Amino acid sequence: MNTEKIKEYFLNDKYAELVGIKIVDVKEGYCKTEMEILPKHLNAAGTIQGGALFTLADLAVAVAANTRGQLSLSIQADISFIKGISKGKVYAVATEVSEAKKIGNYEVKIKDESGDTIASFHSLIYRKKDKLPF
Amino acid sequence: MNTEKIKEYFLNDKYAELVGIKIVDVKEGYCKTEMEILPKHLNAAGTIQGGALFTLADLAVAVAANTRGQLSLSIQADISFIKGISKGKVYAVATEVSEAKKIGNYEVKIKDESGDTIASFHSLIYRKKDKLPF
Amino acid sequence: MNTEKIKEYFLNDKYAELVGIKIVDVKEGYCKTEMEILPKHLNAAGTIQGGALFTLADLAVAVAANTRGQLSLSIQADISFIKGISKGKVYAVATEVSEAKKIGNYEVKIKDESGDTIASFHSLIYRKKDKLPF
Amino acid sequence: MNTEKIKEYFLNDKYAELVGIKIVDVKEGYCKTEMEILPKHLNAAGTIQGGALFTLADLAVAVAANTRGQLSLSIQADISFIKGISKGKVYAVATEVSEAKKIGNYEVKIKDESGDTIASFHSLIYRKKDKLPF
Repeated sequence: MNTEKIKEYFLNDKYAELVGIKIVDVKEGYCKTEMEILPKHLNAAGTIQGGALFTLADLAVAVAANTRGQLSLSIQADISFIKGISKGKVYAVATEVSEAKKIGNYEVKIKDESGDTIASFHSLIYRKKDKLPF
Repeated sequence: MNTEKIKEYFLNDKYAELVGIKIVDVKEGYCKTEMEILPKHLNAAGTIQGGALFTLADLAVAVAANTRGQLSLSIQADISFIKGISKGKVYAVATEVSEAKKIGNYEVKIKDESGDTIASFHSLIYRKKDKLPF
Repeated sequence: MNTEKIKEYFLNDKYAELVGIKIVDVKEGYCKTEMEILPKHLNAAGTIQGGALFTLADLAVAVAANTRGQLSLSIQADISFIKGISKGKVYAVATEVSEAKKIGNYEVKIKDESGDTIASFHSLIYRKKDKLPF
Repeated sequence: MNTEKIKEYFLNDKYAELVGIKIVDVKEGYCKTEMEILPKHLNAAGTIQGGALFTLADLAVAVAANTRGQLSLSIQADISFIKGISKGKVYAVATEVSEAKKIGNYEVKIKDESGDTIASFHSLIYRKKDKLPF
């Protein structure tokens, strides 16, 4: 696995770019993403929209899963919201629950700058037979 | 309940605006949202990013839950991805699984223009004691 | 598909037998199960234990998924508890969210005798290449 | 908190008794349960039924949540199945994702005797105002 190639590949994620998510660390079965909360991320109540946190975590899983060399697609994800915040940076760290199989199982902790967990996320991915295009 | 006021309130959701989601129908415990898939919504594989579909469904639940008159916050949501698409419009319809309580239970079907279900979504919300600010 | 064979096959589910679950209706992609709440199903608070409701729904999905002719295994399930009850019959009805694929998507409504939804359940199954053993 | 009282209280869970689940360790916000797989736990395919693993994890969360002194009820749970097994002991360890609040967030790892994760589980609980009855 070439973590630089993985990062480069995910630069093509236009939606992650729109939301403003950065991939900050990649290892086998692991990824950390970050995002700075801006006015564009807020919901009607003035706190960060759940969809922005979802995408932060979802991208971390996509990268972590694809480090395994096969094209991996998300089939399911769930997120629990613990604390509402309105500014600062947020971080998502994705790790593997079990070693790589046909169906991969990932968990993500989403934290704010003070280290508090603001949301938790879990996801199942499906590994296709296709190799990654690089 | 005044559905026009509800729609107006959710125009303050800056993230939904960024993503390009419209609220097209609101009734008691019900909401339909829509989004036209644009290049900005695509992931690295060229299909619509899960986070965009999540937000489409999440906003539908937020609106449907808040028609009940009390401020409602999402505490949990899960989404399953069924079909990957790259263009056209997508629609999310949120309905109540059970009548309004402290913890509300909503389900959402996300469909494409041909009527195929492309994702399913479920969410729990927590009704606060606060009335909506209007 | 032979619904009688399917029912017969699931009579081998020893755990469903222990819990006291009956398969009452089977069609393509559909199953209804029922259970009478007995003292053995109650938790420490005196209401039906979540695990009993989970099993009622899970069996309904297992049967519905296996009507498609290929061996299907549950890979994920989530359940939301809406109303706690202590007696009477409970019913679970499993239906397909989308037509049969490699990954199947099922939803289940769990109701009491009065028709109230007491829990909702969703599950993903994985269809193996193996045919069912009959 | 008196962990002995908690264990005693959960001896009243008739369903856990039926399934054969033991509470083996309790601390603040923590519980470990175990079960020996017996023929009564097997599904039609001869592996442990998902409902038995669900109950093992669910009880661990119920105990861990109730160590906080307030009556806690499960409102939602999801489980992912990773490895199918047919014999030996299985263990569930429940821990808190975030410190105690109105809505509690717990995660559970379910492992077999060799230490492999066979399922993962997450649950939300709702803390009522009522104190525990002891």
